Amino acid sequence: MIIVMNPHAPQASIDRVVREIEKMGAGAHLSKGQFRTVIGAVGEEGKIDEAHLASLDGVEKVVPIMKPYKLASREFHEDDSVMEIGGGGAGKTPKVKIGGKHAACIAGPCAVESEEMLNKIARHVRDGGATILRGGAFKPRTSPYSFQGHGETALKWMRACGDELGMPICTEVMDTRQVELIEKYTDSFQIGARNMQNFDLLREVGKTRKPVLLKRGLAATVKDWLLSAEYVLSQGNRSVILCERGIKTFEDSIRYTMDITSIPVVQQWSHLPIIVDPSHAAGKRDFVAALALAGMAAGAHGIIVEVHYCPSEAQCDGPQALLPEAFKEMMTQLRAIAAVHKREFADAGEAVGA
Amino acid sequence: MIIVMNPHAPQASIDRVVREIEKMGAGAHLSKGQFRTVIGAVGEEGKIDEAHLASLDGVEKVVPIMKPYKLASREFHEDDSVMEIGGGGAGKTPKVKIGGKHAACIAGPCAVESEEMLNKIARHVRDGGATILRGGAFKPRTSPYSFQGHGETALKWMRACGDELGMPICTEVMDTRQVELIEKYTDSFQIGARNMQNFDLLREVGKTRKPVLLKRGLAATVKDWLLSAEYVLSQGNRSVILCERGIKTFEDSIRYTMDITSIPVVQQWSHLPIIVDPSHAAGKRDFVAALALAGMAAGAHGIIVEVHYCPSEAQCDGPQALLPEAFKEMMTQLRAIAAVHKREFADAGEAVGA
Amino acid sequence: MIIVMNPHAPQASIDRVVREIEKMGAGAHLSKGQFRTVIGAVGEEGKIDEAHLASLDGVEKVVPIMKPYKLASREFHEDDSVMEIGGGGAGKTPKVKIGGKHAACIAGPCAVESEEMLNKIARHVRDGGATILRGGAFKPRTSPYSFQGHGETALKWMRACGDELGMPICTEVMDTRQVELIEKYTDSFQIGARNMQNFDLLREVGKTRKPVLLKRGLAATVKDWLLSAEYVLSQGNRSVILCERGIKTFEDSIRYTMDITSIPVVQQWSHLPIIVDPSHAAGKRDFVAALALAGMAAGAHGIIVEVHYCPSEAQCDGPQALLPEAFKEMMTQLRAIAAVHKREFADAGEAVGA
Amino acid sequence: MIIVMNPHAPQASIDRVVREIEKMGAGAHLSKGQFRTVIGAVGEEGKIDEAHLASLDGVEKVVPIMKPYKLASREFHEDDSVMEIGGGGAGKTPKVKIGGKHAACIAGPCAVESEEMLNKIARHVRDGGATILRGGAFKPRTSPYSFQGHGETALKWMRACGDELGMPICTEVMDTRQVELIEKYTDSFQIGARNMQNFDLLREVGKTRKPVLLKRGLAATVKDWLLSAEYVLSQGNRSVILCERGIKTFEDSIRYTMDITSIPVVQQWSHLPIIVDPSHAAGKRDFVAALALAGMAAGAHGIIVEVHYCPSEAQCDGPQALLPEAFKEMMTQLRAIAAVHKREFADAGEAVGA
Repeated sequence: MIIVMNPHAPQASIDRVVREIEKMGAGAHLSKGQFRTVIGAVGEEGKIDEAHLASLDGVEKVVPIMKPYKLASREFHEDDSVMEIGGGGAGKTPKVKIGGKHAACIAGPCAVESEEMLNKIARHVRDGGATILRGGAFKPRTSPYSFQGHGETALKWMRACGDELGMPICTEVMDTRQVELIEKYTDSFQIGARNMQNFDLLREVGKTRKPVLLKRGLAATVKDWLLSAEYVLSQGNRSVILCERGIKTFEDSIRYTMDITSIPVVQQWSHLPIIVDPSHAAGKRDFVAALALAGMAAGAHGIIVEVHYCPSEAQCDGPQALLPEAFKEMMTQLRAIAAVHKREFADAGEAVGA
Repeated sequence: MIIVMNPHAPQASIDRVVREIEKMGAGAHLSKGQFRTVIGAVGEEGKIDEAHLASLDGVEKVVPIMKPYKLASREFHEDDSVMEIGGGGAGKTPKVKIGGKHAACIAGPCAVESEEMLNKIARHVRDGGATILRGGAFKPRTSPYSFQGHGETALKWMRACGDELGMPICTEVMDTRQVELIEKYTDSFQIGARNMQNFDLLREVGKTRKPVLLKRGLAATVKDWLLSAEYVLSQGNRSVILCERGIKTFEDSIRYTMDITSIPVVQQWSHLPIIVDPSHAAGKRDFVAALALAGMAAGAHGIIVEVHYCPSEAQCDGPQALLPEAFKEMMTQLRAIAAVHKREFADAGEAVGA
Repeated sequence: MIIVMNPHAPQASIDRVVREIEKMGAGAHLSKGQFRTVIGAVGEEGKIDEAHLASLDGVEKVVPIMKPYKLASREFHEDDSVMEIGGGGAGKTPKVKIGGKHAACIAGPCAVESEEMLNKIARHVRDGGATILRGGAFKPRTSPYSFQGHGETALKWMRACGDELGMPICTEVMDTRQVELIEKYTDSFQIGARNMQNFDLLREVGKTRKPVLLKRGLAATVKDWLLSAEYVLSQGNRSVILCERGIKTFEDSIRYTMDITSIPVVQQWSHLPIIVDPSHAAGKRDFVAALALAGMAAGAHGIIVEVHYCPSEAQCDGPQALLPEAFKEMMTQLRAIAAVHKREFADAGEAVGA
Repeated sequence: MIIVMNPHAPQASIDRVVREIEKMGAGAHLSKGQFRTVIGAVGEEGKIDEAHLASLDGVEKVVPIMKPYKLASREFHEDDSVMEIGGGGAGKTPKVKIGGKHAACIAGPCAVESEEMLNKIARHVRDGGATILRGGAFKPRTSPYSFQGHGETALKWMRACGDELGMPICTEVMDTRQVELIEKYTDSFQIGARNMQNFDLLREVGKTRKPVLLKRGLAATVKDWLLSAEYVLSQGNRSVILCERGIKTFEDSIRYTMDITSIPVVQQWSHLPIIVDPSHAAGKRDFVAALALAGMAAGAHGIIVEVHYCPSEAQCDGPQALLPEAFKEMMTQLRAIAAVHKREFADAGEAVGA
């Protein structure tokens, strides 16, 4: 950690900082420049209290050098981690791998609106190449007057559908009180962008042993995001898959700006798999394929995407749902792009047999 | 609601949109331009399903005209709402008004670290002009390894301290499971920026009858924020106070960009009171007073601010805590600025007698 | 254009708006809702003065429906435009196509530091697959104390080098006073991000007949960018190539956030070719290939990239320069991705023969 | 400057960095931590080449400690600088001070549309308390089809009007080729937000001796902005006044987000005066006063604001122009707020007599 003193900070302030660093069990190295003194605190960074040092008189700023997360970092685990989703349910769904050379496609409707509709869409996405089924039972909606999901009923439909088709399922959890219920049915949890820093929720899913798909918050830096992953990991759940889904910027031609620059950054800093959600970023089906392709080209390990055979009947986010035919075409292109990085999408057949 | 069709959208698509609008019980007005047709859907906007229309073939975009929130809007309640915090506790703390011509200062430590420290700071802020006591019992921290608060013990200290000094208290709730516990002790809930779209939490505090201080999310537009207020209001709790605390922008010289433009915008769109949190925006005590003054000058109804007599001992956010002396000076300036808008800060004495 | 009136705007205000619309030669269609009146102004949108209408009493906001640019729009020119760079110089360099099915790679050093270095890098990039040579003669630097380029001398070196290798050249123009000089030497102009709204400069390059590579401004929406293209086009120069190079966002792990969402948006709104500049977005060579691949996968018509055989000797932006070997590898991957969109990079051999 | 090495960077890379630092005439201090080595480069920072060091093998990042600008910094000039505008023209207009305890109001129309209109507005703003007259002769417009200003004719009107009323004038320069012409007429140059990094233009106005009002770019950090000021100062022109006018953020309820946090930051880092432009930030007259008041409360040295007696006739930016009556009222409030900071607006009478 580097402590930059104000220009003309008195010697007493400098001495105090040095003493405090030493109290923390670290060593202090001084560099005196023409205008100011810079102090390096050397030791185990976890033990050096950045906020405390920043509070001391005469300190202009504190620049941390090490990453504040541990379990999520490449230093902790050098190779790409490969996560497995599935293996549960009555029908013992196959385990689908994500990470390293394994790419996966998670697809399904935005919200689970009825059993029939779910089954129909699930077949479409399986035939198109998806190996994990997504669907919302509890929906986070910006307006209290919008459809909020069918809850447990939808979870049952999803479990039955996943079992029948041999597809593990993934569904969103929004509230600590839902964790136990959802855990009973699902193969993996999704944490939505707006809950990325709902720390109690992160801790609760961290206590389970089901993989967690952690979407990036709308205003979260990559560092914030990895710290949220650390919350889950630190509870003992070592299966976290990151999901880039767009950030808020000034650009208003599209719903969110999908930040594909986060993909190579995450892969340099962390061993965790990362996928992209082109549907929520685009907000409009016309742009979904371009964003999915870009994400895979940037190095993602897969996608999560919304599909509907009749988007104008969807109760939620219809404009962004791909038609089954377009989904199929996109998957063909995605396979070609994954191959550039020597990644492979398991196909449905393989997965079932796995 | 305005539906803009693609250039060259076929007549069949236009007809379909018109039929759908009429099915929703609204009227459709067509304007045919040189390149495209624009359709106005006139009726009760709540009944017109924007997403559905946006999903139809040939629709380029849908522009809503009315605000999507109701109870939070100026149309619903033309005059400024005045909220009251307090009146509870063993000592029956006074009721402090916020809104309209009533400005209020909420102050205290970031986290409640010990009873002694709390009592000391509370006296400092009361003497400086604060009439509501803040303090964190449960702390949302970006790192799982940081201090997370003393929980219920801290709530007890706060209740006792508030009762003794005649100051209603305000503390953060982070999890739906904490609502019941915190409600027993506090006079008002604070919802942090990272939970602004934790919809289950909003609903739970909406079911209580204690005022809710709703901080703006780091990436929330004013519209998103008022929709979150609507979640609380729609449950029957009509006491919501908005709090601007800075948004994420590219500027890195300060922790967050305090968006004072939100203050006049909120006041044009909504009747709810709005205050500012200069401490979290600034992240550094040097800048706190400037932001507080700017917020009041832009028309805010008060501030929430962190104070510590020894910031270098604070377990959380020490660098942004004001020293008691600086707090007092700032309050004098704030009173002068409030007067420009004919607003008045109740002083501690008055408040106790109220 | 849609004019939304305030709730309760008096009839006189509504009548005034209608009269003003009719004065502009357009028709006014009224839709009266429960709370407010909305007026559609139908006619040639270029003749309807948005700012004037927005200034009238009782107007809440004006929503333009048509795009404010014409020559840049898909409506004006339905098919993808294909631009040609080259054909000039003593050696009559080949013409390289960009747009539609033609992808191109523009590569070279950031700044032209010496003739020898330029020649060496030019050979490297030609061998790797670039068909246009880039290099800065006049450099825009954020600090007045940084190296500002070798000016005309560098232009001469570039011309000679391009002629020798059969590569058209591309170089940045920063000032209206340089246009004449640079036009003498170059095959195409580059307008940097910081000059995207230097309207006088846009007009001056618009008066020439050399293609203009127009980088997106750091805070420019796609609409702003196309309006800047319109400045050039409206002067008679019909060759504009857009270049996405990243925007400013809160994310600080990378220099700029390359907004690949702009690529499909531009292609829906405009017929102009669009390429990406991964070097300036990344700021660091580790991330350059990922961004280039993502850009091509999103549908770009090529890239402009910085290469240096010895980045630590570069006088400017060394950390982002690719090594020749890495450049070559990336080009192989880019060809595979372009093929997914049925685009093709001309190879150097072909180009020379063209 | 701090050089952070990659974890496991080989000793040879560390040695190379040390050698390079020493070649630059600086000293290198090593701190070896558990995972990585951090190197402090101590010496005159201007001589240490950040980009070069960042380009070396094994370097993860370089953290500059000193500010990259000199003449603009507080270190260079500890006290607030006070700039003077005026003293020129036939009538020898008074000199108006801005900076330190001197606040000033610059007001007038957006564009100078006719002599009569200019004279009328000028009288209104002088009567309301403005001491400097603004008005656009050359207008930067995002669309090539919008009104572009009356050029030299407008300059003549402005000079005559300023002379008659005893008000120095301020007008925008957009192109290096206009500097000489505008210098003949004006008392001060305005550089617009979109030209903040038009480095050639900065250099040209830097060669004159007329004060330069430098607006902040829409995506410029405070550091970028001060570097642009440095361009002007480094040419010998020591009169630069900064102007905050809003930045681009995701918030869409208002045209730009006026970043009042920049005001205390600028004052901590620099001695230059800073004013605010509430008109361009707000884009709508309803919000102008709130932003102006907030700016002054945050510590600004004045405002620049647009006024029009009949905004619906304005050829440019009518919706944001204040009516003369509202301007007058706002000035009364601004004086009260300036007093909180012990700043004073010269009134027109005083100024003329000065």
